[in-house]
Amino acid sequence: MMRALVAADGRLQLCERPKPAPAGECVIRVRRAGICGTDLEILAGYAGFRGVPGHEFVGIVESAPEGAEAWIGCRVVGEINVGCGTCGFCREGVREHCERRQVVGIRGRDGAFAEYLSLPAANLHAVPDDLPDERAVFVEPVAAACRVIAQVDFSKTAEAAVVGDGRLGLLVAQVIAQAGVRVTVVGRHTEKLAIARNAGMETMAAEAVRVARARFEIVVDASGRPEGLASALALVRPRGTIVLKSTFHGATPLATSPVVVDEVTIVGSRCGPFPKAIELLSSRAVDVRPLLSGTYPLSEWQAAFAAARTALKVCLEMTT
Amino acid sequence: MMRALVAADGRLQLCERPKPAPAGECVIRVRRAGICGTDLEILAGYAGFRGVPGHEFVGIVESAPEGAEAWIGCRVVGEINVGCGTCGFCREGVREHCERRQVVGIRGRDGAFAEYLSLPAANLHAVPDDLPDERAVFVEPVAAACRVIAQVDFSKTAEAAVVGDGRLGLLVAQVIAQAGVRVTVVGRHTEKLAIARNAGMETMAAEAVRVARARFEIVVDASGRPEGLASALALVRPRGTIVLKSTFHGATPLATSPVVVDEVTIVGSRCGPFPKAIELLSSRAVDVRPLLSGTYPLSEWQAAFAAARTALKVCLEMTT
Repeated sequence: MMRALVAADGRLQLCERPKPAPAGECVIRVRRAGICGTDLEILAGYAGFRGVPGHEFVGIVESAPEGAEAWIGCRVVGEINVGCGTCGFCREGVREHCERRQVVGIRGRDGAFAEYLSLPAANLHAVPDDLPDERAVFVEPVAAACRVIAQVDFSKTAEAAVVGDGRLGLLVAQVIAQAGVRVTVVGRHTEKLAIARNAGMETMAAEAVRVARARFEIVVDASGRPEGLASALALVRPRGTIVLKSTFHGATPLATSPVVVDEVTIVGSRCGPFPKAIELLSSRAVDVRPLLSGTYPLSEWQAAFAAARTALKVCLEMTT
Repeated sequence: MMRALVAADGRLQLCERPKPAPAGECVIRVRRAGICGTDLEILAGYAGFRGVPGHEFVGIVESAPEGAEAWIGCRVVGEINVGCGTCGFCREGVREHCERRQVVGIRGRDGAFAEYLSLPAANLHAVPDDLPDERAVFVEPVAAACRVIAQVDFSKTAEAAVVGDGRLGLLVAQVIAQAGVRVTVVGRHTEKLAIARNAGMETMAAEAVRVARARFEIVVDASGRPEGLASALALVRPRGTIVLKSTFHGATPLATSPVVVDEVTIVGSRCGPFPKAIELLSSRAVDVRPLLSGTYPLSEWQAAFAAARTALKVCLEMTT
């Protein structure tokens, strides 16, 4: 048996559950797991998920199927999409768009807020020794941030804006900045904007957006809030690009005519490349230390989730 | 003096107005003008416009400023954006995104529902003799349809969908079809979908969208309706592209998470190339005859606008 947080009907509970033992997958002893905005949205009803949430983790492979024994004992992080293996997307290696996919802790598959989880070996990436657990747990969200620079060409852009000064916004801002672009972070929190300023970025208070004269070629909405897209539309220049990273439960009223009149391009952006994220975290090109707000033992999950509503990255430690 | 339809506070009135005589512009005697969905939206409050609406027209140049006298007597159509001439966009020849632009019959400049309008010579295009007035009046909306194939690469796409079986939807569908793509038109009107079927296209009833299994690489929303974007999202495949052409007054509730999760790209699309539109109409590669629902003298404008709410393209004739 193992301890696990289980989500059902918008509530979390710490339960005893059987340890996972699926055929053909690796079993990973979770050492640390990060709480993401999506986890909070799941509790609000997003994706209708029931089961163990949690999709940002680092752990040790405890068992592996035949042919994958080399993983046993390895410290790993894991990609969160598990595809059917046979559809067009899977055959192209794009598991994240398989129609029948499972997504760790989000869709049809238990996640990392537990002492153990299981994953196919194909989803695993070894963590280099110079990347300790407290930074390795950021690989998944940094990969999601890296997806932005994989989708949109920043090479001709001197300046970009990121709407959202939360955990994802500050990661996206750093990833864009290390690509050589001057970044303005737009947010609501003085202390979070200060982190951006300390990293050499420009900042703008969210309430200044409506009167801002600045217009950016590329704006990323990583606010996680329904109003983030409207802010991005106010900041983007005609024929510019908005990268949309916010997922939240429900619909938001949007005046779409400005998208048409200004011929704006909106690009949805989700999961990204783990190798690039591991590289940026190992080299400290992306510095996550100012983002780490606290680490709680699994038994103190209620305090951890309460903190995650306002803090930056809150983690759960499974070892105690 | 001249007769003109004047919009103010959501009402139209036929008025006597001074004939336009601006310095440095050509004065055009309007022969025929088309009623567009945007004109109906203007009466619902879109763009807050007051003045003479109408931006689809064909006419004869009656007077021209020094240096442009060669235009006098020419039958012309006109691009609708008049830029400041000095900003970055204007210097690149992209008048449609000049921040201080006027737009014929939509923003700060009187339009074509009048016996005369004025435009800079730079906005004019001569109409070839083989393109009679009743088809030439379609140049502006066909150009807007052509903008779609200028923005999005259809060369790798076998099938695309167009949401909207109205005047713009049927034009966009034809422009995409003549580019060699198999088109499915999605709409609510049996008789309008029949026009698409007669042109060799597939059709889908709007109420079938939610249960449709079809997924398209490219979907154009030309519905002019708030719910068009949601229909397009239901029809597009992951990593596909939605081209958004609908402008309407107000905001619409939109669940944006599917845009993120499916990594959909949404491209706003507005005005397009007049030369390409003239070519497609001259060669009859785009056949507008089934779209022409009726032509009314200016004095019967009330009947014309009433018809335009449900019919395809309704035109006003200024000669009587």
